[in-house]
Amino acid sequence: MTTGTPREFFAVRSVGEALNGFRPARRTTVELVALAEARGRVPADAVVAPHDLPGFARSTVDGYAVSARDTYGASEGLPGYLEVVGAVAMGKPPSVDAGQGCAVAIPTGAVLPRGADAVVMVEHTQQAMAGTVEILRPVAPGEGIVRADEDARGGAELAPAGRPLRAQDLGLLAAAGVIEVAVHARPRVAIIATGDEVVDPGTPVLETGQVRDASTVALAALVREAGGEPLPQGIVADDRPALERALARAVADADVAVVSAGSSVGARDETAAAVAALGPPGIWCRGLAIKPGKPTLLAECDGVPVIGLPGNPRSALVVFRLVGMPIVRRAGGWEAASAAPVTRARLARDLASAAGRLDIVQVRVRDGVATPLFGASALLSVLTAADGFVVVDEPATGLAAETEVEVTLYG
Amino acid sequence: MTTGTPREFFAVRSVGEALNGFRPARRTTVELVALAEARGRVPADAVVAPHDLPGFARSTVDGYAVSARDTYGASEGLPGYLEVVGAVAMGKPPSVDAGQGCAVAIPTGAVLPRGADAVVMVEHTQQAMAGTVEILRPVAPGEGIVRADEDARGGAELAPAGRPLRAQDLGLLAAAGVIEVAVHARPRVAIIATGDEVVDPGTPVLETGQVRDASTVALAALVREAGGEPLPQGIVADDRPALERALARAVADADVAVVSAGSSVGARDETAAAVAALGPPGIWCRGLAIKPGKPTLLAECDGVPVIGLPGNPRSALVVFRLVGMPIVRRAGGWEAASAAPVTRARLARDLASAAGRLDIVQVRVRDGVATPLFGASALLSVLTAADGFVVVDEPATGLAAETEVEVTLYG
Repeated sequence: MTTGTPREFFAVRSVGEALNGFRPARRTTVELVALAEARGRVPADAVVAPHDLPGFARSTVDGYAVSARDTYGASEGLPGYLEVVGAVAMGKPPSVDAGQGCAVAIPTGAVLPRGADAVVMVEHTQQAMAGTVEILRPVAPGEGIVRADEDARGGAELAPAGRPLRAQDLGLLAAAGVIEVAVHARPRVAIIATGDEVVDPGTPVLETGQVRDASTVALAALVREAGGEPLPQGIVADDRPALERALARAVADADVAVVSAGSSVGARDETAAAVAALGPPGIWCRGLAIKPGKPTLLAECDGVPVIGLPGNPRSALVVFRLVGMPIVRRAGGWEAASAAPVTRARLARDLASAAGRLDIVQVRVRDGVATPLFGASALLSVLTAADGFVVVDEPATGLAAETEVEVTLYG
Repeated sequence: MTTGTPREFFAVRSVGEALNGFRPARRTTVELVALAEARGRVPADAVVAPHDLPGFARSTVDGYAVSARDTYGASEGLPGYLEVVGAVAMGKPPSVDAGQGCAVAIPTGAVLPRGADAVVMVEHTQQAMAGTVEILRPVAPGEGIVRADEDARGGAELAPAGRPLRAQDLGLLAAAGVIEVAVHARPRVAIIATGDEVVDPGTPVLETGQVRDASTVALAALVREAGGEPLPQGIVADDRPALERALARAVADADVAVVSAGSSVGARDETAAAVAALGPPGIWCRGLAIKPGKPTLLAECDGVPVIGLPGNPRSALVVFRLVGMPIVRRAGGWEAASAAPVTRARLARDLASAAGRLDIVQVRVRDGVATPLFGASALLSVLTAADGFVVVDEPATGLAAETEVEVTLYG
């Protein structure tokens, strides 16, 4: 662990400790949303089937509904002959039964008539004379059909609590007639930018020394990716009372509060002091064993997680992606882990790393080769030039060129 | 290739042929969006830096701005002594220069004063007497700073055309003062459901034989995932003139038209006939060598792609994810490929597959083991129970248990 003073030593935690150990209680409330708006939303409770699905035994092929035992022994050489007593129309109850020795013509998806327990595919039949069909292959009971409760039994779980709804989940809920879902509200994430040098991105001409706020809009995008609703709070001066007021408002209004601290050590201390002033349980850690992003503060106030990010946008984005997004998801009721796209690639060169620290190295990936991108952590262009990043774990002291690594890809 | 009649044989294409060869010309128009709304949007042209970034040489550490050559030879045993002539305030132009033998106190992120070409970290200095600082380590020119154009040179590309904007791209654009971006409009995707048995998901009680429309809401979710705007067209009866009217309207109003065909062979033929009636260039293929999803039709009308999907929702979703989403993205100006989350796992059992056909097998993944899920392709629950899918390529005739496979995960 890379540490400065002893005070700092005790306050620095690993990323793993933060992900597993920092667990503020705040969860968003529950709201009803229309199914068409429910993609990515997180059910507060398991959604269950109000009735059997599809609700009736259904043909899965175009063919003839039969009693399977009427087809036993049928072959191309010695076909079985069945009387065609009618046809099932799509979407309607059958008007005839498939009695012994009888077949009913049926399209894919139609209701299996009474007396039938299988459907012979039309390809395995032959039209003989009018009113009769030749069966060229036998079928077993259940062949060519789905049972009335085969997609879901009434009362069965259609979608679990705590996992965002995917396209297919919406489809199954629609099939079951569930057109509204009780989901966690999107976590509201207050984003406070600080720094005497920081000005609004809309500032057309900068004075020497000013920089435009790059963090707020980028963090807001990551909040949306994590299913949250960003609440940008504007830029607060490096001034303790102003920061305390902004933080108190954020904790009162939002489910998660994020402060991108000023970049200097003094500004970081101001953030920590303002957070400490919010009251218990207070600060959980003052630093993370990660590069870039060490000056990250995690705190809790009345169950609301407070995340103090490093002042430079690049470090802030790296840490927020790794540690902040899971905190936002948890506030929004996620219980599952989220998966990011990854690819495997060979390292183009050696990577140095300090033991006891997680290193996040930005890389370009071309033709299976990952080329590390270096540059001061103040440079956002390193992050925009990257296709993804490599994580060098705490125990490693580096990775040799040609090592096969896993690259987590951006978007 | 699994084929029925010779007519069908010539019309069946591979998924690879479809992805590379089916290229309708339609692209959406260009619109201006605010930076805060630009996540995932696709720039129509490269976005360039209006000026150098950060625009001034900037300290990356807390310390003392110096002329590097004034520190040569300094060590803990034999420190260099420099006169502290002032301090730079954050966000302001420096009020003093760093002349020979002089140092200027500077916080991280502040403007480098004239005369300085490096910054010594405060950790490598010692406060001697008032007005003097001891330098304990030498610095090289450029150390502890970023150049005025190091993040981007004026005129340099900040974000390429054709690739969706990511969080960090928004950050860099904000830093450059670019607060609006010219992006492709979201492709409008008309979704037509057909089938005499299909009723609205809001139908509380079904008549025997009816099924609720599961495809529209699920396809709409995938359209959104692909950056498009779904335009649900409701349910059209299996009736040629009605379908022709709905398709003509879709092609006139939308950038992509999707029809989830009725499930019977007859209904599929109706869709094909309605598409053929739209006019040239017309039908590109009547089937894909994929399971499930073979009865997929691809066509083009006035540059607008028309996708005829299989009638059962499960096959429709599998094919739309594989073939439809890239078509939507292309209409929306994507030039890059999109990455999906994947994981590697061992197959729990043998998988059979026919050579010449791409097989999409749904799997559950637990502890590195992928368990295939089977069931009639009419069952949507197979898709909702899955964590992802395995692709068995065309040449393969199957995969043995214990084979390590790549699983594409559902987000």
